[in-house]
Amino acid sequence: MVKETALTLHDPIVALATPWGESAIAVIRTSGEGCIKKIAGVFKGTGKLSAKNSHTVNYGSLYNPENSELIDEVLAVVYRAPHSYTGEDAVELFCHGSPAALKKTLSLLYCHGFRQANAGEFTLRAFLNGKIDLTKAEAVNEIIRAKSDKARKLALHRLAGSIEKIINSFKARLVDLLSGIEVMIDYPDEQYEHHEFSLQELRRLLTEVRTLLATYKAGRIYQEGVSIALTGRTNSGKSTLFNLMLKEERSIVSDLHGTTRDFIEGAIAVQGIPIRLYDTAGLRSTDHPVEAEGIRRTDKIINSADIIIYLIDGSRGICKEDEAFLNQYKSSGRLLAVWNKCDISRKKIAEAFIPLSSLTGVGLHQVEKAIVILLLGGSSLESDSPVIDSLRQKQYLAQALDALERTEAGYKKKISFDLLAVDIKEALDAFGHITGQVTTEGLLQTMFSKFCVGK
Amino acid sequence: MVKETALTLHDPIVALATPWGESAIAVIRTSGEGCIKKIAGVFKGTGKLSAKNSHTVNYGSLYNPENSELIDEVLAVVYRAPHSYTGEDAVELFCHGSPAALKKTLSLLYCHGFRQANAGEFTLRAFLNGKIDLTKAEAVNEIIRAKSDKARKLALHRLAGSIEKIINSFKARLVDLLSGIEVMIDYPDEQYEHHEFSLQELRRLLTEVRTLLATYKAGRIYQEGVSIALTGRTNSGKSTLFNLMLKEERSIVSDLHGTTRDFIEGAIAVQGIPIRLYDTAGLRSTDHPVEAEGIRRTDKIINSADIIIYLIDGSRGICKEDEAFLNQYKSSGRLLAVWNKCDISRKKIAEAFIPLSSLTGVGLHQVEKAIVILLLGGSSLESDSPVIDSLRQKQYLAQALDALERTEAGYKKKISFDLLAVDIKEALDAFGHITGQVTTEGLLQTMFSKFCVGK
Repeated sequence: MVKETALTLHDPIVALATPWGESAIAVIRTSGEGCIKKIAGVFKGTGKLSAKNSHTVNYGSLYNPENSELIDEVLAVVYRAPHSYTGEDAVELFCHGSPAALKKTLSLLYCHGFRQANAGEFTLRAFLNGKIDLTKAEAVNEIIRAKSDKARKLALHRLAGSIEKIINSFKARLVDLLSGIEVMIDYPDEQYEHHEFSLQELRRLLTEVRTLLATYKAGRIYQEGVSIALTGRTNSGKSTLFNLMLKEERSIVSDLHGTTRDFIEGAIAVQGIPIRLYDTAGLRSTDHPVEAEGIRRTDKIINSADIIIYLIDGSRGICKEDEAFLNQYKSSGRLLAVWNKCDISRKKIAEAFIPLSSLTGVGLHQVEKAIVILLLGGSSLESDSPVIDSLRQKQYLAQALDALERTEAGYKKKISFDLLAVDIKEALDAFGHITGQVTTEGLLQTMFSKFCVGK
Repeated sequence: MVKETALTLHDPIVALATPWGESAIAVIRTSGEGCIKKIAGVFKGTGKLSAKNSHTVNYGSLYNPENSELIDEVLAVVYRAPHSYTGEDAVELFCHGSPAALKKTLSLLYCHGFRQANAGEFTLRAFLNGKIDLTKAEAVNEIIRAKSDKARKLALHRLAGSIEKIINSFKARLVDLLSGIEVMIDYPDEQYEHHEFSLQELRRLLTEVRTLLATYKAGRIYQEGVSIALTGRTNSGKSTLFNLMLKEERSIVSDLHGTTRDFIEGAIAVQGIPIRLYDTAGLRSTDHPVEAEGIRRTDKIINSADIIIYLIDGSRGICKEDEAFLNQYKSSGRLLAVWNKCDISRKKIAEAFIPLSSLTGVGLHQVEKAIVILLLGGSSLESDSPVIDSLRQKQYLAQALDALERTEAGYKKKISFDLLAVDIKEALDAFGHITGQVTTEGLLQTMFSKFCVGK
């Protein structure tokens, strides 16, 4: 655990935990030493709030004790340490989702002993108070940020402790290996060959660590999603394909709160991968006075896209402009060439093209399959096997892998057991960082600053 | 109470009660017959949810019983009828504020016996189940929509029952008057002069109803706010005044979630009145190719503004263009003419102008005072006296007033007691509509459709 520092404060903190805006309900979250008593000082209900049991919901009014002004009618949920999210005394207030009332309530609490919580400070406290390890803490944030159902599912598994469990088992097995080595250090006169160390077990571990590490790319893709640019000459059918994909695939965002600001961007999910789809056709058809601006924006989208789908008008075949584009991007590893209008094309479909009719939808499934293969290669994710999504976890895992590879190489070279032990301890230390058994203040600050305030 | 209709259903309903978006916490609200048992069917926690006491918070997981898939980790708050907001059995779920997880949770509940709640349906049920009267129901929505602290305070008083109380007292006093008249109807041989009816009391009532009715305009202004257009010739100091007002007055919105989309609109509060302030200078200085577009937008803002502040460059005095504008709007009842740069102006300040230096801030207080007087006249609102904000309440109050005025006139003309009784009963009926003692299905539908979903 970390030393006593500013990070281990237990002072009462407060934050709005729901999005700002008019709504039925808003939740204001508080936690810290003396928190229940402090809320009780600005709360009028049936009986004293400070005498209520943990996990009870209490109806009452918030008021300013200085001038008796009523602030809002609320429900106050009391949690007593250690039976709360943070492990501290905590109170959650169910308020009216009224910006004017919330502003007033937060001011009231700032004036009565609470300070505004930092981003992720509630979860940080949960970690510091031993309620969760770091992989679960990260999973909390990953669930919130999940952009597809698959990403939600993977993060939920991590929250349930899948990464913590696997890392702890790695550690336990490494400690076994280490103790075998330490026996040899204590009896240096024994033959190098007759020892307690199992190379086979080390190699099994290496394979498993490599497998877990390899899930990172897939984890990122499912969590963060990718962007795809639909490109091609005028009349190649970009907009038709765009509309087809939006219609066929479950649109994640646009049907719910309309983030699709214009007609050139859409959010869909293909086999659980969140995808932002850009129709570059839309860009040039805007009424921007300068056509150059449209071209600049198209180039920007193409350059930052994870995948570029290039459509050929199959009824006309490949023209010079098409060839120039395909040559430019063919070695980028991001290009999918699609032979559109294959239903009315009489030309022979060139190799390396995926046949599609964006009008009828024939071939769409092949295009999507190609997208997934381009992103994930052959690997597919079982929903039950743990997948890492955190860059931090990936870095420590790579560090552990590196140390274990050095251990293996060292063993082959018959280096001294003392030195092998150093490498294994480094791997153990790296695993300890992943769960947070070993950690630093700086790391925690960086990690939790990525959270929502109120979490 | 209303008859049994579709409106009096008790089937289980569900809605997201917090704004859609990524956040620490989201609340899903459910209510209706069998609601606790239905949630218990998709919830795994410590012990059976269906056996939990009211007002308890229970940690567990939501899962799909068909394929055992985990959906989210949540806290489930159980409320048992009649001790809930709606008066029915209810469960509130504290979920991760994850759009992907919320979507999945809502789908799960739709598949397990819940239907999406209509706007305001929870509050409608609270009314139908006798938990609150209609004035309190409206106050719930008014708190959420409050755009300033004053509006929040006024709505909170209504939620505490201030309007219900005053209307009930009106009714009680009218019933007294009516019983006096009914005595006379039973003994028609008595002299008209010797009766039990108090004209004085009727007149007191009339005054009080008129006073309450007059609060409507102020109620609207505090609740909905007004818009002010800052106008004047180039270099008259519009932008300086705009920035001064934004800086001096507590900005309601812009410091919290930046709804100020460009530099020409700001939200402030002047003496508790929410104000949207438009700097028309910004409109013409945009890089729009067609100047005519800028002029069109300025005209639109001026035409829809509740108040037009026209600035004169006092260092130059009034010019022809100024005169033309002032003449155009002087009889609109919306114009405030301001003599700006009064600190460097050597000219005599024309009458009917408010002297101001938008640079130093001298005179700003007078401008604000003039704004409030223009909006509210001489009337000021005591925060403890009830203020009506609902058009519905205003209309029934006007109807009651009308019936009471007819009663007074009829009495003077010595019309028969039977006819007086008819008028008084009409007033009673109108009061009954305000609190919801008398109501119709159509009215309820219209009223609650203005609510948030989830409230």
